[in-house]
Amino acid sequence: MLSSEEGHQYRAVVKEGDLVVIYIDDKRKKLVRVRRGDIFNSDKGYVRHDELIGIEIGDKVRLSTGKYAYVLNPLLTDIIDSYKRVTQVIYPKDIGLMIVLTGIGPGSKVLEGGVGTGYLTSFLANIVGDEGKVYAYELRREFIEVAKRNLSKSGLLSRVILKLGDIRKDVTEKNLDAAFLDIPDPWNALGILPKVLKPSSPVVAFLPTVNQVIKLISKLKSTRGFIDIRVFETQLREYNVDPEALRPKPIYVVHTGYMVFFRVVKK
Amino acid sequence: MLSSEEGHQYRAVVKEGDLVVIYIDDKRKKLVRVRRGDIFNSDKGYVRHDELIGIEIGDKVRLSTGKYAYVLNPLLTDIIDSYKRVTQVIYPKDIGLMIVLTGIGPGSKVLEGGVGTGYLTSFLANIVGDEGKVYAYELRREFIEVAKRNLSKSGLLSRVILKLGDIRKDVTEKNLDAAFLDIPDPWNALGILPKVLKPSSPVVAFLPTVNQVIKLISKLKSTRGFIDIRVFETQLREYNVDPEALRPKPIYVVHTGYMVFFRVVKK
Amino acid sequence: MLSSEEGHQYRAVVKEGDLVVIYIDDKRKKLVRVRRGDIFNSDKGYVRHDELIGIEIGDKVRLSTGKYAYVLNPLLTDIIDSYKRVTQVIYPKDIGLMIVLTGIGPGSKVLEGGVGTGYLTSFLANIVGDEGKVYAYELRREFIEVAKRNLSKSGLLSRVILKLGDIRKDVTEKNLDAAFLDIPDPWNALGILPKVLKPSSPVVAFLPTVNQVIKLISKLKSTRGFIDIRVFETQLREYNVDPEALRPKPIYVVHTGYMVFFRVVKK
Amino acid sequence: MLSSEEGHQYRAVVKEGDLVVIYIDDKRKKLVRVRRGDIFNSDKGYVRHDELIGIEIGDKVRLSTGKYAYVLNPLLTDIIDSYKRVTQVIYPKDIGLMIVLTGIGPGSKVLEGGVGTGYLTSFLANIVGDEGKVYAYELRREFIEVAKRNLSKSGLLSRVILKLGDIRKDVTEKNLDAAFLDIPDPWNALGILPKVLKPSSPVVAFLPTVNQVIKLISKLKSTRGFIDIRVFETQLREYNVDPEALRPKPIYVVHTGYMVFFRVVKK
Repeated sequence: MLSSEEGHQYRAVVKEGDLVVIYIDDKRKKLVRVRRGDIFNSDKGYVRHDELIGIEIGDKVRLSTGKYAYVLNPLLTDIIDSYKRVTQVIYPKDIGLMIVLTGIGPGSKVLEGGVGTGYLTSFLANIVGDEGKVYAYELRREFIEVAKRNLSKSGLLSRVILKLGDIRKDVTEKNLDAAFLDIPDPWNALGILPKVLKPSSPVVAFLPTVNQVIKLISKLKSTRGFIDIRVFETQLREYNVDPEALRPKPIYVVHTGYMVFFRVVKK
Repeated sequence: MLSSEEGHQYRAVVKEGDLVVIYIDDKRKKLVRVRRGDIFNSDKGYVRHDELIGIEIGDKVRLSTGKYAYVLNPLLTDIIDSYKRVTQVIYPKDIGLMIVLTGIGPGSKVLEGGVGTGYLTSFLANIVGDEGKVYAYELRREFIEVAKRNLSKSGLLSRVILKLGDIRKDVTEKNLDAAFLDIPDPWNALGILPKVLKPSSPVVAFLPTVNQVIKLISKLKSTRGFIDIRVFETQLREYNVDPEALRPKPIYVVHTGYMVFFRVVKK
Repeated sequence: MLSSEEGHQYRAVVKEGDLVVIYIDDKRKKLVRVRRGDIFNSDKGYVRHDELIGIEIGDKVRLSTGKYAYVLNPLLTDIIDSYKRVTQVIYPKDIGLMIVLTGIGPGSKVLEGGVGTGYLTSFLANIVGDEGKVYAYELRREFIEVAKRNLSKSGLLSRVILKLGDIRKDVTEKNLDAAFLDIPDPWNALGILPKVLKPSSPVVAFLPTVNQVIKLISKLKSTRGFIDIRVFETQLREYNVDPEALRPKPIYVVHTGYMVFFRVVKK
Repeated sequence: MLSSEEGHQYRAVVKEGDLVVIYIDDKRKKLVRVRRGDIFNSDKGYVRHDELIGIEIGDKVRLSTGKYAYVLNPLLTDIIDSYKRVTQVIYPKDIGLMIVLTGIGPGSKVLEGGVGTGYLTSFLANIVGDEGKVYAYELRREFIEVAKRNLSKSGLLSRVILKLGDIRKDVTEKNLDAAFLDIPDPWNALGILPKVLKPSSPVVAFLPTVNQVIKLISKLKSTRGFIDIRVFETQLREYNVDPEALRPKPIYVVHTGYMVFFRVVKK
């Protein structure tokens, strides 16, 4: 699925340098880079990485205590969830809806404003594939470095053009298929969108507060060239996986942000 | 993005036979196949399709009343939402989460059980791209035909192998990357999954009732070879797009179904 | 529970003039005033009111078709739900929280602004009892009449002082225990509250849009004498009552309004 | 409102022994019993209780640092939230709906099963008033003592008959108006309800898991004498009170339990 040697590409047998998930139980699940000489430790026992090498993915390995652990191929979320994060508000529940609403897929060329640590960037890069590209703008140099490391870990860096710059004015690309804005003032980026996107392309802005939503839709409605405006919010509930006592987890994330969708047309 | 002549591929200029969206306002937005001699009618006026041909996507066209309409490239959801549906419970909010949780992308080979009219199938086909494939099983012959027409309309049919058969026992594929089950009794399909999926691959079952969730997780927990079980439910709120009076739409879909995620390992 | 002959007071045996609920099944449940000579009709058969008189509450009565119906004492909600409504946004889910947050009870004297058809008024009147009082202000004379009829039907009219007037300036009461504001511009009523309420008393304003919430909390925070400001929103899900297929009803009311709670202190 | 000297009765001037709320800001709000010689301490300064005595409710008092604090009459929730709790799942959002659905009010005689620390009991006692009564059954002697102390603190003890006993078989009361069941197996209490409640009276059972809901509604539907069965769930969102950045609090309680409502009729 990925051309790179890194990341979440499937391998049938564990090799030195691979990323794998060691799964003991739901509370003990960890992403590990396999390195000869290293030891995987847990409160249920340890195992030498040397013993992992050559194991078939999906097989069990025996811990020092006699307990077993499964060796799994990492899913994209396993790797992305391991990112060192400085900030983070967009969640999988939101990203999934963004992908579906904009209809991006293999080959799509997309614009992203506000890279942060590359969380959304990674999901977009996974979807656009080797034929597509994510043009990702970020103002703060330190985030560019973090995002680079994170994307590298996921094996997705080759699909992303990370740019230190201001999405409100510095974008030079043309004919992109969609835009994703995770910046505090997307209303200041409206002017550049028609120059960058193919006519009629979709945009989604992610905004934590209702004040920002009001400001953005007010600007969109009073400016020519923006239509099909919609505002969404997703909520996710996760359940305790107990067939004798099924119930939602009592305390959970109930708010990340609002999504404003719109399309850019000619004025 | 698509190799086919059909579907949601972007074209800069409207040609005979294209699918376009005619957008007058949020209440008047329609998917149209451009045919010489046809007329697009609305309560805001009509326009001859002949006048649409040659128009640049994103441009306005003048209706008979003097009012204007935008001509848009259809997004994937525009086409899929136009499907003739017989049944439908999975919504974009759910499909987005399924895509993100399983981490499928370009090149993925996936199994789908319960095609129905091809709604979920289309989103999966969009994500796996021309290098990937959706192996889609359906018991009822009449649905196969409907799904075929729908996928053809979206230009995605070449990425889908539609099979008349029982996913509980008839699957012959090997080494698939993920499975999506939209059947009433996924517990009866557990036996076949380890033979079909690469070890450690993810599965998502979509279930409308809590009784089904209880039955499935009970079976998963008592059967060897299924781990990392999680249960989710998404809720979507859409807001009235009025910057002077922002509020959620009062009446909305509040329940579609629950999603049970798990991974298949060796016994 | 009520001093009046009307309303939702419990009676063990049905008499001429009583309000009762005729319950055939969940879809056939109706509030009826028992009048000699009248007939209760349904698609499951009819019964003469004369046959209801003398029946014990909770007993069955035989319909013309041989099917049975239960004769129930109406609960407060049965009567209130039968009100002829012109407008209505506050729902039981909201009213319950308002009652709990303000802590009103028997003997409370409360202010209500924006009576409408008396929906909230009735619930408040039920809680304050014969020792308490609801001072209810309404600007539109026609609503006063509707509310009067509705409160009379519930047997709660004696606990309510309906006033044709502007809650923003016309309130003459003193030493009230709590205020409930269901008006579009509660920020214009802030000036009168300290004169009307006992110091440190609670207020709840009900507001359909986020713009109103922003405006009210902005005014509250910039004006002396208002503290302990909190903003809430409730959501209700109702489930299909099927033990074999338990699931939330798919389409439901997802938004009524926001509640802003605060307390009035000395400046 | 209350006959007792204790609890949440309103007093205009602070006296020795009163319960008051000292409010500095939203994060510093505390219920305090005023005792000569005691000191109220906070990270914003202290104040001697002697200085509180004689202060008018709603007035400010000066802390040692020069900062001010308001002295408030406690609302019922202020006192109840201060209860020493051992267990607790029912929340105000649920209790409010229970009160509205059952229509209880001043003078109501109600049954409660599963007292715990008296949280729900206190809200019920507030609503039924001095003319009403809560008959509250609890199996564990230690909870009876805790509930007694808590109800005493709220000034509501005289309205509650606390009974050490099993609601499934020990109830001796007759002609009650409503029942509230917070026990793990309400299906075992169904037999006693028709003997205890007035015919056609409402019952609400509170249940944390869907398995319990399924079991209860299954029993209710297969047993004669129980009708008008409904299942509800409430969700509460609280917003950050910032007029420049209004948004729901990100992490919150998303699940407490389900409520099953029904009415008891003659068999």
